[in-house]
Formats: sequence, structure tokens, C-alpha cells
Amino acid sequence: MSIESHTHYPDQLKSGDTLLQAQKELYERASTSNIENFAGTVRIPVGLAGPVDVHGEHARGTFFIPMATTEGTLVASTSRGMKVINESGGVRTKVVSNGGVQRAPVFEFESLDDAQAFCTAMNGDWSWLRSAVEASTSHGKLTDISAWQLGRVVCVRITMDPGDASGQNMVSVAAQNGTGEILKKFPTIRRHRMGGGLSGEKVSSSVNTLLGRGRSVVASVTIPGAVMKRITRTDIAEIPRHQQHYSNFSMWGGHPAANNSIANTLTAMYIAAGQDVATTCESRIANNVLDYDSEKDVLHWDVHVPTLTVGTVGGGTGLPTQKECLEIMGCHGPGKVNRFAELCAVAALANEISFWGAMCSHEWIDAHASLKSR
Amino acid sequence: MSIESHTHYPDQLKSGDTLLQAQKELYERASTSNIENFAGTVRIPVGLAGPVDVHGEHARGTFFIPMATTEGTLVASTSRGMKVINESGGVRTKVVSNGGVQRAPVFEFESLDDAQAFCTAMNGDWSWLRSAVEASTSHGKLTDISAWQLGRVVCVRITMDPGDASGQNMVSVAAQNGTGEILKKFPTIRRHRMGGGLSGEKVSSSVNTLLGRGRSVVASVTIPGAVMKRITRTDIAEIPRHQQHYSNFSMWGGHPAANNSIANTLTAMYIAAGQDVATTCESRIANNVLDYDSEKDVLHWDVHVPTLTVGTVGGGTGLPTQKECLEIMGCHGPGKVNRFAELCAVAALANEISFWGAMCSHEWIDAHASLKSR
Amino acid sequence: MSIESHTHYPDQLKSGDTLLQAQKELYERASTSNIENFAGTVRIPVGLAGPVDVHGEHARGTFFIPMATTEGTLVASTSRGMKVINESGGVRTKVVSNGGVQRAPVFEFESLDDAQAFCTAMNGDWSWLRSAVEASTSHGKLTDISAWQLGRVVCVRITMDPGDASGQNMVSVAAQNGTGEILKKFPTIRRHRMGGGLSGEKVSSSVNTLLGRGRSVVASVTIPGAVMKRITRTDIAEIPRHQQHYSNFSMWGGHPAANNSIANTLTAMYIAAGQDVATTCESRIANNVLDYDSEKDVLHWDVHVPTLTVGTVGGGTGLPTQKECLEIMGCHGPGKVNRFAELCAVAALANEISFWGAMCSHEWIDAHASLKSR
Amino acid sequence: MSIESHTHYPDQLKSGDTLLQAQKELYERASTSNIENFAGTVRIPVGLAGPVDVHGEHARGTFFIPMATTEGTLVASTSRGMKVINESGGVRTKVVSNGGVQRAPVFEFESLDDAQAFCTAMNGDWSWLRSAVEASTSHGKLTDISAWQLGRVVCVRITMDPGDASGQNMVSVAAQNGTGEILKKFPTIRRHRMGGGLSGEKVSSSVNTLLGRGRSVVASVTIPGAVMKRITRTDIAEIPRHQQHYSNFSMWGGHPAANNSIANTLTAMYIAAGQDVATTCESRIANNVLDYDSEKDVLHWDVHVPTLTVGTVGGGTGLPTQKECLEIMGCHGPGKVNRFAELCAVAALANEISFWGAMCSHEWIDAHASLKSR
Repeated sequence: MSIESHTHYPDQLKSGDTLLQAQKELYERASTSNIENFAGTVRIPVGLAGPVDVHGEHARGTFFIPMATTEGTLVASTSRGMKVINESGGVRTKVVSNGGVQRAPVFEFESLDDAQAFCTAMNGDWSWLRSAVEASTSHGKLTDISAWQLGRVVCVRITMDPGDASGQNMVSVAAQNGTGEILKKFPTIRRHRMGGGLSGEKVSSSVNTLLGRGRSVVASVTIPGAVMKRITRTDIAEIPRHQQHYSNFSMWGGHPAANNSIANTLTAMYIAAGQDVATTCESRIANNVLDYDSEKDVLHWDVHVPTLTVGTVGGGTGLPTQKECLEIMGCHGPGKVNRFAELCAVAALANEISFWGAMCSHEWIDAHASLKSR
Repeated sequence: MSIESHTHYPDQLKSGDTLLQAQKELYERASTSNIENFAGTVRIPVGLAGPVDVHGEHARGTFFIPMATTEGTLVASTSRGMKVINESGGVRTKVVSNGGVQRAPVFEFESLDDAQAFCTAMNGDWSWLRSAVEASTSHGKLTDISAWQLGRVVCVRITMDPGDASGQNMVSVAAQNGTGEILKKFPTIRRHRMGGGLSGEKVSSSVNTLLGRGRSVVASVTIPGAVMKRITRTDIAEIPRHQQHYSNFSMWGGHPAANNSIANTLTAMYIAAGQDVATTCESRIANNVLDYDSEKDVLHWDVHVPTLTVGTVGGGTGLPTQKECLEIMGCHGPGKVNRFAELCAVAALANEISFWGAMCSHEWIDAHASLKSR
Repeated sequence: MSIESHTHYPDQLKSGDTLLQAQKELYERASTSNIENFAGTVRIPVGLAGPVDVHGEHARGTFFIPMATTEGTLVASTSRGMKVINESGGVRTKVVSNGGVQRAPVFEFESLDDAQAFCTAMNGDWSWLRSAVEASTSHGKLTDISAWQLGRVVCVRITMDPGDASGQNMVSVAAQNGTGEILKKFPTIRRHRMGGGLSGEKVSSSVNTLLGRGRSVVASVTIPGAVMKRITRTDIAEIPRHQQHYSNFSMWGGHPAANNSIANTLTAMYIAAGQDVATTCESRIANNVLDYDSEKDVLHWDVHVPTLTVGTVGGGTGLPTQKECLEIMGCHGPGKVNRFAELCAVAALANEISFWGAMCSHEWIDAHASLKSR
Repeated sequence: MSIESHTHYPDQLKSGDTLLQAQKELYERASTSNIENFAGTVRIPVGLAGPVDVHGEHARGTFFIPMATTEGTLVASTSRGMKVINESGGVRTKVVSNGGVQRAPVFEFESLDDAQAFCTAMNGDWSWLRSAVEASTSHGKLTDISAWQLGRVVCVRITMDPGDASGQNMVSVAAQNGTGEILKKFPTIRRHRMGGGLSGEKVSSSVNTLLGRGRSVVASVTIPGAVMKRITRTDIAEIPRHQQHYSNFSMWGGHPAANNSIANTLTAMYIAAGQDVATTCESRIANNVLDYDSEKDVLHWDVHVPTLTVGTVGGGTGLPTQKECLEIMGCHGPGKVNRFAELCAVAALANEISFWGAMCSHEWIDAHASLKSR
């Protein structure tokens, strides 16, 4: 699987022996740290969306994006959005901040006073915890501690910068070590548990948008009306109308963000790239920011993904095919995580463009139907 | 990959030729309806959680659950929860209702009166739409239409029973056909789009819990304190305490449901079983209902998953390895969707038991750490 | 207090004896049904916002709106918005549906099967409950029963049309009578309580927007840019920009609706008009729907209030000053509740116009500051 | 109206001349800063809930709580809860933190880079803003600035400690002054508006629970089962069951907090005490934390109100009857705001106890019905 070979079926080039060898390597590697009761592998088809021209801070050049999915039209739709992007001069991207990774243990006390004293202390100077928290990791850095009191209970949210990893396991070990120190320093603690509800892990929660988690990343494009019309047969002025009504009804339903399709985009990229796929639940929050100039008939479109959990080392990123997918994007290994984050935002933007275009031109269903038998 | 072989590595038994043949079959099948720009496959390790004893309405017997993941400890943790279940006499399961699958087009009008007339009509007798909506599907049945007015805009939520498929594509085609009839009948419609924000697809939304989507399914077990103690080293009385504080802080953060780990469980099962993995975002909502008898030291534990989107036909369920995973559970093909739904709830319950146990016994991190190097 | 006297201080015209007599009447009336441990009265200043020209279904003519508040600038701001409305040709209003009033008892069972049987039955034909539910009220009509199962627990949402009253007490008595019948018919019920969490009373909840509560009412105006500019010094094209960004950040915070000021408007109207003021928490949900025509420089603006709990009989509506406030609007007594609902939406729209205008013209703070010393 | 006279009707003691004089004083005062187009006053009946024994940090002694309401049974129900509190040894209270008061202007930029540079700067050292922000107030202190980027837009949340006032107007003037300095320092700002959606004012939002707003205050009591039984006829073991099911269903509906009745309690106290009543929408969030000891049959019950907006100076607190209500609680004027906050939590706890008791004993409706005719 490589960027050159996206027009034909690359695995046909491989012999059965190569495949068997790959399976053996996968077994060795995965059974060490990725799986228990290993029974084999499931094979997910990968399509390459693209090409897309990216003028980012960390991602620069023309990219193909591997998407692993069994949902027909997803790759084609994303590619169509990328065509809109390319004919609009490409996409700008930027990681605007790093929200880190969190663990949020909870502590119970006998009295309101003890709980308050603890909560106040944890919201104060926490530098004494640094050495314990950082002892078990060569990469992770303690960046914040925040605490909330609720009756006689205090939840403590520990934030670390995980570097190039997504860092869930790193922060877990670190938080447990930190908790050990906390228990020594505060003998008034009556009970504690390692999860208190405010880590924001794998949930769709304001905890993350407000306090940070993962990368906050934007992808922007300025689309001429004629380009949108030619490729998606959509009047570009429909897009802001769609957004307004979609947002209003979404708020009635209690949705946390009114994007349309980023759950699909991220899930496919995460499976391909060896991410912790369940983090899609936290990463899928994203907002569209539209600025339509009716005189010039030009739409500036930002997709902002505020809490994107990604890693280019650790987890599943080292497995053979997943590593290959990351390499197709130039995103495997240390120093590549921001590039990968920017490409996630690019694909999200591309798919939103195509999906909204299809919704507004009434072609969405036809596009699906032509590819689907059931 | 088979239930017999879960204790050793089954693919070693297969020759390179077998693997190559499997790849070719996958290519034929997937490139027809599952993927575009097919570039190869990504291989995800599968572990078998289990065995678990199930006394359900649709799932009866001893099962192993295939979970495809690169996150170490997930399979082991789920298996540990299943051990608690088995030693407590097994798990009861039940699909309590079928919420169907939805599409929610939106319609704009010139006046409030026209919008109201349309909205009222759509909330009234919609049987005239049945033939158009059901024309394109041999399985799907129109079961409900609901509509909401917001100014001069009306969102219409069309619900179909998708039978054994998850049904997103089926309902899309059907809704478009229905929309064609709607446009003919209501000439006052000024604009329309196929997505209005209230379908509930791939979002965490009260639309689904209140109006239904997918299967509403429960798994129940009654755990003696001694069993919980022996297997997880947890005082079972800690579990309701954990739930209360976790729920309270979750509400502060705006989480829609205070379960701990079902996002992990479902993602792994969905990847293995050829589901539309992005539907985890809607399916992951689940609640724990606890009833602790302190005299007998026994905890009755229900996990209720109210909006579980699953299918045993269509989508990725026919791909070779995915089909094999479904077959391990006896869940491939028509008439098996409720069984699969019950097994999803079983795995969710098992993982919650193990995860909460680990949190309350302070062993969660150690369990992870022992398996993790980074 | 009367519509004629709004330019001077009417109570100066009353003698001390009149005031004493009024206090006595209030005491007689209030101590019977509105208050216990009666200790006197608190006096809230009332200002009249207006005049405003209304072309509604139930409210037609020129109105002044009594607002009881201690927050300076609220009445002036609402009046300013009404000036924009008047110079734009007045406001159209419409009650688009009646969501009724709810009570949601909860029932526990020994088994999942019993719970499911009960839940299914309650979602089926509930006409057998009508006579018991309607026995205690001459006005209230049973209009819907919906039920949800969560493990072995079922919450039943009983909806009644309360007619001209807000109906919270009516539905409480009716629901208790209905529950009595339910208990007789379903001996499998193990425990029950009269509140299960899905009534939607006095909370900001998707239960109400999706399933209905109170009146769903719209107020619409089409504002020329020149009018907005002259009165509020705001470029009208700023308004949709404000909405988009306000909505996006509101979703980050988990707000259920991105209106700006309706909580202020309704609170003041509800205090003046003898409403159950705590219902502001459910009634304050409202959405702005904007349609800007840049060629004509004209903005169509809808404020849609989907769950407005109001009454013109019962509760505090019969107390002397509250009755007077309702009479100023022609809204006291039977047959007036839809008119009052429409006027609530009018005031909400007027205040949004003025408030958003002030925010976008940067005059909001100055307007406040000129009236405020602290 | 005074604490001595709560058993009879105190205003009967006043002559008509006294009442007329009071009206004149109110007019003078209110028309200066509380109202425009002053048309008279609306009179709300006040009942005194209590007595209640409070062992707080700021509130110590036996108190009566003035509640202004037209909803029968509210005062009686709160008094009943206070009886449970008194017979359980009284209530402990504590203000655990001061979240301040906020204004959240929004700024637009031409480029992602400019927006990021601004956002980073505002999240860094903001001490240069202190003099401008604090210039217009003798009491308010700048305590925090936080900023969030969303595409090319940045929302800045400015927090001040308002001292004894609720402070909404103070922070508005201060934020405008601060914004003036911001505009000077950052010429890249293209547009700005004074409201960006993250102030948390008068909305039910995670912004407030997570980032703070108003006082975070707790009231605690330890109730013997026998006391609960005698006064409310409720088995105290029912209370935690009620909480669990109420919380689960509340999460399905998207409620932000699963308390039952605090919206009622606060609205009545706020009207009586001259508060900005619309702030109930932000203040009503509250959680119950329960700790039931089945061996001793004793329930420890905390009500935690995390974002309570209160003031004892400014706004409506200086109006004659409102001032009198504050004085009944010893809460008028500087240095009393924490005491008032604690008493709000006391009344909230008392009403929750009585309300939950009524729900669990099935007497809630009867209690209402006996006082209600409609």
C-alpha cells in the first residue's frame, strides 16, 4: 500500500508468502501489547481519499488520506470535497493549541472542611507533584491540575502533554503515581477511585471543549461559488442556511456540535492509522465557521476540531498495515503528530464540504444509492 | 478464526495461498459496495473475550465475543467481567424495543401559516407516504413520522424498521423517495434539504434516547459480594458510590450518560463484526442501574443500552473476516440482529463490571501498566 | 395602573385608604391558596414596555407590556426593540402548537419482563385511563401518554391540555388519580414515585423541545437595514454573524439554545402577570431564525419559543396587581392564554433585537452604564 | 414584616398613610435605577419558611426565610423540610469557593495566525488589563481571563470578584473598558461584539459548573430514618433509589442537574430579596450527594449549589420591602453575601428533603391538592 499505487490494487503485487510473513509479524507485535486472547485479524478495506493540496503549518504538499471503512461512498465523498478544495487553491491548516491528555481521580472526605482544604490546595501550587507524575514516562509532561468540590467529594483533573502519543495509558500510570503522593500528603482522604467523571475520555463533553483535550486544529478554505456549483451542483448560498437550521434543531436535540459527518471521517482515518478508535467519541466534536461574501459569491469555510485525540507513536501505530497508512501521509513516528492532526482536519473539512453539498443539491441519496444494493 | 481455536493462533494454520485467496475475495466484494479507491486492507488484531454464560431471549448459551482493537487490556478486562458474570450465575438479556433508523429532511416555507399547515399534516396521518417510502426496500417498514416547526422551517423525522440491517442507506433512499412525494403534495415548500439535524445519526443526542434509534437492550446480573471481591478485589458496596459521584460530575460536564467504558467495548465489537463503526457515537449512550442489598451483600446490576445501532446483514457484515466474527457469535445473517444486540449489552456489562471494579480497587492502572510499555 | 397612565405615576392617584384596602383584599385571596405563613408583600416596580404593533392570530392591535423587574434598562431596551418592530411594519405572531403540561411518575418491577410488558402497554392504548385522569378537573384533557424502560424501571410521561391555566397542579392531581388506576391494573409494580425525571418541569431539557410542553409560539418581523441602523446604530449584516458565533460557542458550553436575553424578558413578564416564575427555566429556551437579504438589505427575524408555560387563569393570575397587569394586555381570564403566549414572544423578539443591536453596535454597556451607579 | 410577626399579618399593623409613604419612597428609589416607564408596583405575597437551625460558616443561629411566591404549598413544604433538619440537629453550611461574575466579548480576525496570537496572549499574562478593568468599580477585582479560539474567532471570558454585589452591571462596564484597551493593543482585530456565548449568564451551562460563576455553596444534614419517617412518612432508604432513577432519566432528557425543586426555592427567595430573578436559570443547577448508612438507618444529605449568583448590595436589594426581607435574614448590605448564599443552600436542601419525601411517600399530590382549588 503506497501513495503511488492508489490507482490499482497493491496487495495483488504481494505473494502469499509475503502475506503470511506479515501475519506473523503482526502476531508477534500485537500479542505483546495490543491484544489478549489473540485469535487472528479482521481485515478492513482501505481507500485513499485525495489528492488534496495542503498549505499547513505541519502538513505541506499534496496528500492522499487512507480511510478504512466498510461504508461505501465515504472515500468517494471525501475525495470530491478535496476536489473542491484543490480548485479553490488548497486548504490552510493550523494546530492552535494542545489540550493534552487527562485522568481524573476522585477523593472523598469526612467533612466539608477537609474537602475544601484539599480542593483549594490542588487548585494552588501543584509543582510538588511533578516528579512523581513524570517519573514513569520519558515523554509526558504535567501541564495542569484542576479540582472541583461537590459536597464532601473532590474530583481532580490531571493534564499532561503526551508529546507524539495519544497518551491515555501514559497518563493513567502517571496519575496513579501522583495519586499515591496525594494520599501520603492528605491523610484526611477517606476513599478514592481513579475515575471521577471529568477526564473527558471517550465522551462528548463540555469538559473537553472548555478545558482542553487533544489538539485544537483548524482547516480553512475559501471556495468560489462557481467551483462549488460545478463539482457539487450546489448553490453556495445554501450552505449558511443549512448550517443555521441544522444548528438550531441540533440544539433542540441536545447535540454538542452541529457538524454533519466528521464522525465518519475520523472513524475511518483512526482505524487506518492505528488510533484508539473509541476516542472518536471525544474527537468528533467540531464546528463549522462560515463567512459568505454574497457580492463576490465566495465562501470562507473553517472546520475547527477543538479536541482531537491523536498519536503517531504507541498504541496501534506500530502495527504493520497501520504504520504503512501513517507513512502514506508522512505521519509515522515522533514529531509527526501535529501533521496528522492537521490532515484529520483537512479530511473532516473535505467531507463536510461534499456532504453538505450533497444535502443542499439533493444528490446525497443518489450518490449513496448508486453504490449500494441493500 | 473460530471458537475452538481461541487459545492458540489460528491464522498460523492457514497457508500463504489461503491468505492470498482471502485477499482476492475481499477485494472483489469490498470494491463493489464498501470502498472506493481501494488500496488494500488494514489488519486489526482480534481477541476473543469470554466465555460468558448468557440466558437471553435471543442469545442463549456460552459465547466468545470477538473484539478488534489495538488497545491492550480491553479483551482481558472484558473477559474478567465475564468471569464475574459466570460465577454469579450468568447474565439475563432482553431487547425491550426497536427504535428503528431515521432520516430527517428539512423544509422551508414562505410563511408561518404554510409551515404550520405542513407540520400539522406530517404529524397527522402519514399512511399516504408508505408506498413511496417502502418502494425501494424489501425489508424496511415505515413506522413513524414526526415533525417540528421552528419559525418557517419544519424538520421531519422519518423512522423505519430496518429489520436485520442497520439500515442507514436503506432509510436514505426511502426518505428521498418519500420527500419526492412530499414535494408533490405540498407546493408551498420553498426549499428543502435531506438533513435537518434531528435524525440522531452518529451523534450523542437526546433525540435518540427520547424518540428511539436502534435497539433498546438490557443485560442484567446479580453479583454476590464475595464473587466481586475474589475476582476484582473490590468491595461491592463501592460500586453504587462510584456511580453516584461519577454521575454527578458527569452532569457538571454535560455528558449524556454516565457509563464508563462502553465506548471501548462497542468500538471493538463493531470493528470485528463489520458494523458502521461511526455509529458508536450514537450507540455508546448507556446507563447503569444498580440495586444493592446490603443485608445479603448482593448487587443487582443492569446495563441498559437504549439506542444501539446494529445489523447482521448488509454493510461490512459480508466481508470475509467480519462474517467469520459474526459467525463465532452465531450472529451472521437474517434473524440474528437481536441476538447480536443482546451480546453487545453483555460485553458492555462485563466491561463495566471489570472497569468499575478496577477503579474501585485501585488496580485499574496496574492492570494497564503490566501490559503496556509506553 | 392602566394603559392610559403609563406616562405618569398612577399609584400617586390612589389614597392611603385605597392601598390599605388593596392589601386586605390581597391577604384574603393569597392566604387561601397562594402562600402559607403569610407575612406581607414584596413590591416589585413595574414598567410598561411599548407600544408595539402586533398582527397576530390571537393578539391584534397596539400593546403595552408590563414588566416587573429591578434590573434597570430592561424595560427601556425592550421598548427600543419595539420601536424597531413598529417602524418595520409590526410583528406577526402565531401559536403553532400546544404541548400541554406533564407529570412523569416512575414505576419499578421485579423483572425485565414485567417492566417491558408494562412499558409496552402504556405506549399502546391508554384510553382506559382517561376517566380517572380527567375526573378531578373540569378543564384538563388527557392528550398523550409515553413511557420509557430503563432496566427494571419505567418512567411514564402523562400529558394533559390544561386549557387556559398553566396547569401544574391540575396535572399533578390528575396524574395521581391515574397512577391509582395504574397500580390496580398492574400488580407487578413493586414501587412507584410521582417524579421520574422526564416531566420537563422547570428544567432546561430536550424532553420539552422534542416532546412538547406549553405553547410553541413564534414572533416574526422583517427589518429594513436603515431602520435597524437609525434606532440601534447597528449594521444589520452583523446580526447573522453574531448568531453564528454565539451559537457555536454556546454549543461548546452545552447551552440548550443560543438566544441572548429571553430569560430576562420572560422573568419580568411572569412576575408581573402572576405566572409561576420558576417555569422560566423551561420557557426560556428559544431560537432565533434569521434570513438576511443582502441585496435589499432586509432581515427577516423569527423568535421561536417552543415550550412556553403560561396561564391566564389560576395560580397568581387572580391577585389584584397581577390581574391588573394581565388586563393591561387584554389577557386576563379564560380564552386569553394564546394571546398572552403571543405577547411573550413579541417581547422576547423585541428584547433580542435591542440586545443584539446593542452588542453589535458596542452600545450595550454604555446604555447600562448611563442608568447604573453601582 | 419582621421575624417576630411571622405568625400574624404584619401589614395590618400599618396604616394607609404608611403604605402611601412606602409607595412614594419606592417610586423615588426605583425610578432612578431599577425601572423605566414606571407604572406602579406588583405585589407578591411573602411567606416565611422556618424556623431552621443553621450551623454555618457565615450563617449561624435560627432563621426564617422570606419566600415570595404565588404557588401554594412552597412555603409549607420548605418549612416541613426545615422541621426535618431541626430534628436532625440542624444544618451545616459552607461557601467553598467564589466563581465571580463574567462577561465574554468576542473578537474576529482576518487570519488563523492573528486569532491564535491573540488567543495565546489573552491566556497568558493579562495583568496589563487590570487597571483598565478595575477603573470603573470600587469593589470589583479582576480575577481571571480565559480565551478560546474557534476558527478566526476568539471568545474571551473575563472574570471579576464582585464582592457583595451580584455584579452583572459592574462587570459589563469593566469589560467594556477592558475591551477598549484590548482593541488598542491588538490592531489585528477586525470586528468585535460584547457577547460571545461563554459568559454563562442566565443559562444552564457547563461553562459555569466547570469554570465557575457565583458562589459554590453546600448545605449538609444527617437525617435519622425515624425523623424522616415521622415528619414525611417516607422510608429514608427510598431517597437514594429516587436519586438514581431520577438522574438516569434526567440524563436521557439532557438535564444538566438532577435536583427536583431548587428552581422553585431560589425563584421565591430571589423575588423576595431583590435579586436579579432571571439568574435563577444559572443558579438552579445543584446536585444532591447522598450517603446512606443502612445499619444505623441514617442518611447524610448534601445539597451542593455550584453556581449561585447572589448579592446583598446593589440591584433590587435597596428597595424597601426587598431590603426588609434581606434584613429578616440578617443579610442586607456589605459583608453579608456569603451568609445569604448559605441560606439559599439551606432552603434548597429543606425543600428537596420535603419534596423528595413527598414523592417517595406518595403524599406530594395530596399536599398540593389540599391547598389548591383549580
